[in-house]
Amino acid sequence: MKTNPGRFFEDYRLGETIRHATPRTVTTGDVALYTALYGPRFAVQSSDAFARALGLPQSPLDDLLTFHVVFGKTVPDISLNAVANLGYAEGGFRRPVYPGETLSTVSEVIGLKESSNRQTGVVYVRSVGSDANGETVLSYCRWVLVRKRDPQAQIGEEHVPNLAKVVDPNDLAGALPPLDVSAYDSDLAGSPHRFGDYAKGERIDHVDGMTVEEAEHQIATRLFQNTAKVHFDNHAAKDTRFGRRLIYGGHVISLARALSFNGLANAFALAGINAGRHVAPLFAGDTVYAWSEVLDTADIGRADVGLLRLRTVATKNQPCGAYPDRQGEGYDPAVILDLDYWAFMPK
Amino acid sequence: MKTNPGRFFEDYRLGETIRHATPRTVTTGDVALYTALYGPRFAVQSSDAFARALGLPQSPLDDLLTFHVVFGKTVPDISLNAVANLGYAEGGFRRPVYPGETLSTVSEVIGLKESSNRQTGVVYVRSVGSDANGETVLSYCRWVLVRKRDPQAQIGEEHVPNLAKVVDPNDLAGALPPLDVSAYDSDLAGSPHRFGDYAKGERIDHVDGMTVEEAEHQIATRLFQNTAKVHFDNHAAKDTRFGRRLIYGGHVISLARALSFNGLANAFALAGINAGRHVAPLFAGDTVYAWSEVLDTADIGRADVGLLRLRTVATKNQPCGAYPDRQGEGYDPAVILDLDYWAFMPK
Amino acid sequence: MKTNPGRFFEDYRLGETIRHATPRTVTTGDVALYTALYGPRFAVQSSDAFARALGLPQSPLDDLLTFHVVFGKTVPDISLNAVANLGYAEGGFRRPVYPGETLSTVSEVIGLKESSNRQTGVVYVRSVGSDANGETVLSYCRWVLVRKRDPQAQIGEEHVPNLAKVVDPNDLAGALPPLDVSAYDSDLAGSPHRFGDYAKGERIDHVDGMTVEEAEHQIATRLFQNTAKVHFDNHAAKDTRFGRRLIYGGHVISLARALSFNGLANAFALAGINAGRHVAPLFAGDTVYAWSEVLDTADIGRADVGLLRLRTVATKNQPCGAYPDRQGEGYDPAVILDLDYWAFMPK
Repeated sequence: MKTNPGRFFEDYRLGETIRHATPRTVTTGDVALYTALYGPRFAVQSSDAFARALGLPQSPLDDLLTFHVVFGKTVPDISLNAVANLGYAEGGFRRPVYPGETLSTVSEVIGLKESSNRQTGVVYVRSVGSDANGETVLSYCRWVLVRKRDPQAQIGEEHVPNLAKVVDPNDLAGALPPLDVSAYDSDLAGSPHRFGDYAKGERIDHVDGMTVEEAEHQIATRLFQNTAKVHFDNHAAKDTRFGRRLIYGGHVISLARALSFNGLANAFALAGINAGRHVAPLFAGDTVYAWSEVLDTADIGRADVGLLRLRTVATKNQPCGAYPDRQGEGYDPAVILDLDYWAFMPK
Repeated sequence: MKTNPGRFFEDYRLGETIRHATPRTVTTGDVALYTALYGPRFAVQSSDAFARALGLPQSPLDDLLTFHVVFGKTVPDISLNAVANLGYAEGGFRRPVYPGETLSTVSEVIGLKESSNRQTGVVYVRSVGSDANGETVLSYCRWVLVRKRDPQAQIGEEHVPNLAKVVDPNDLAGALPPLDVSAYDSDLAGSPHRFGDYAKGERIDHVDGMTVEEAEHQIATRLFQNTAKVHFDNHAAKDTRFGRRLIYGGHVISLARALSFNGLANAFALAGINAGRHVAPLFAGDTVYAWSEVLDTADIGRADVGLLRLRTVATKNQPCGAYPDRQGEGYDPAVILDLDYWAFMPK
Repeated sequence: MKTNPGRFFEDYRLGETIRHATPRTVTTGDVALYTALYGPRFAVQSSDAFARALGLPQSPLDDLLTFHVVFGKTVPDISLNAVANLGYAEGGFRRPVYPGETLSTVSEVIGLKESSNRQTGVVYVRSVGSDANGETVLSYCRWVLVRKRDPQAQIGEEHVPNLAKVVDPNDLAGALPPLDVSAYDSDLAGSPHRFGDYAKGERIDHVDGMTVEEAEHQIATRLFQNTAKVHFDNHAAKDTRFGRRLIYGGHVISLARALSFNGLANAFALAGINAGRHVAPLFAGDTVYAWSEVLDTADIGRADVGLLRLRTVATKNQPCGAYPDRQGEGYDPAVILDLDYWAFMPK
């Protein structure tokens, strides 16, 4: 067969390395689309002049654009037959990525665990995004529940990896070059609040809401060359339990991050992803809101920036003034995303 | 509070200067999106080769893209709690803007007038868009009706500025460098009609119609980093008098301008904005049409170009063959925009 | 009249040459939008590094982006009053086009044939897209059924051109510079299947489906500066036989081509268009699927690449596992496109 039917659970081998198609040169065209699709306003990524004043060569990409491009490549090999995207861990951005760079992705299968009903299994991969020289720009683990082609198929070696609950912030300190934060203009950045102004336990309602249209998430998801059919094929979706297209979970992450500008305007770069869970699906017509909690602050031995450990929760069709959260064994029914990450903030 | 709730009327002081976030480097990515969202076909902005033949270094941005980027920055500080955008005056484009330039905006509060019911007030600002060197590329005045947080709040000094009804065309003559119009190719530009072919009083029906989708105006408005929630939050909009999202008024201006190509193909650059009124709101699903009247022609002492004073009227769901216009105290119910501006046209 | 009402059948003269507005510099912004709108994943067009390894200076545009930009310019002069776009022939891509190049289009009227009822006539044109130096990058013939303004109008010389059924593959061999295919990385390209792996008669179901939204096809069609009002004006469309906007036929071609990656991942460049027929209209909300047949293979005397003659059939709302095709005098009712073309594939 010349077409890719996607891999099933029994097709993976522990320790196997998968080189993904298609390498992608990211450009200012991608940046413009990212801005148009999510509305980010972080000054470092928006203004070359602002970035240069800090000592960067130009505006880097929004880190989540890098993430989505790196992630998108894994879909045809990892999650085409996935039932669910279960989680993320050990995500680390190694350096800013700039327009003109070419990204490609390799994944290693680091865990396999068949489900007790033998219909599915969990595949754990560590995916590494690299530049044209093969240098890592981003790596992260994710695990997905994947169908078996044949429930009777025997599975080889199984293993559940022991992933860190939190990325050590000291391992992330080098992800940004030294910056001249004396040139960081708070008016232009949109907020006077710096690293020292945030305290562990603080919660911020990001106030604004963003309604999502079918065209928007499809345009975004294709931009990332993410081919998961559940996002695009409404004819097939009619016969699923949702009866409609599902929105790519990464679309929610980017919306939540852009909304978080209102309250976290100076948290201009992501450093690491500790954990992430797509709690419930989002559909076109829904409106996304978000709130964040400061889980921790880390002084990583740099005079220019520190790291905030943030937990950003996104909801649908419910503003976040009441901080909808975990509830009993699960979540408030409005919650759709629970993301735990490290972000740089100037001192 | 770390989030921006937006200013209320009593938060402004006469003479105050507000430096807006977020500076923005405009790119060919933005240009492509602008083309895709509005469909402009002016040759100077579309073709580097055409622009170079005239003596420009490359294609400049559509002037309205510049306008929207400069305008968008003012929204979080000026119009987040606005009831209505009332008008524009004294708009002047100072020079073409090119991809790669970084724009930022500063506004001065030039007028304040509390409403008689003390619930709201009119804020007048002069907003100045500048390049990375601080040189002005565009300035304009606008006034908006803004809610008071507390109707009882006392207001300081009030003042209603005396704004020019029309920008003096001689003040706009320098907004374009000298051009070699002998190289202006009418076939490629799409029309043989030059400055001398238009006469005061002439009216032109621009014929074509453009239906607007929710995704389109949201993508455009985010591209401009305009954060007014009425354009994006359909969950909140359900409880408003319109019951749905409002389309950014600037979206209508850009659609009308792009439609005006059919009849004004050589009016390739804007010079000034005399007045503008968003007569009625536009909603997704509506179809926009436009017609223009030549209010005046100005020979500004240049051998290459002259200025046309144009009034472009946009309607929704009504073609403009009958030139729907002012009617009694108000307007034909189909009219949504009445814009009075100066545009350059080759001789 | 200063507006363009479009030409009617009696306005064309055999042998006439029409220089179309508006020249267009294509950029990485256009490329990003093309990716976002269709989701192509061909590695040569996606990655500068991949293209350079083969010996190209950078990633060229997707050939269909070039096609749409060249085609779009012809619409105001050729098909504004068209009833139907009847066919394509003798299409040839002469060389890859790169971001930064400026394209313009000239058409020659090579045929005219009045319909027997005298209400309409068929106009045949050869359209030539050129770069800023006037060198051809693409030429193709198409014929359209155009209304007469006045059914009684007399028609001058008529002629039905004798167009080739198939472009000679040897005439297309020079459309790509010599490539170092030893550097062609099959993993990154997404498929191990090369020229020698495809055989005449082979059929491939491309599996995936893509649902189209109004915003998407409008954004695409405006990007190409295609002004055909049937794609944009829903107010006017309400009174047509379809009662709604029609999607640009080229949108279907690009979707089918992007879907064909799944099975033809290494058919990375188009060389020629033999024939094309828009069998039925597509509307927003429909889902597009596609399948292809290898009509022929041509070894064109190059050690690096060969040509596959492919026929790609697109359907709406029907997956292509059963290869829906011609049926009796017509087609399976699900078929919307039947395109016959040559594509390069590495050996």
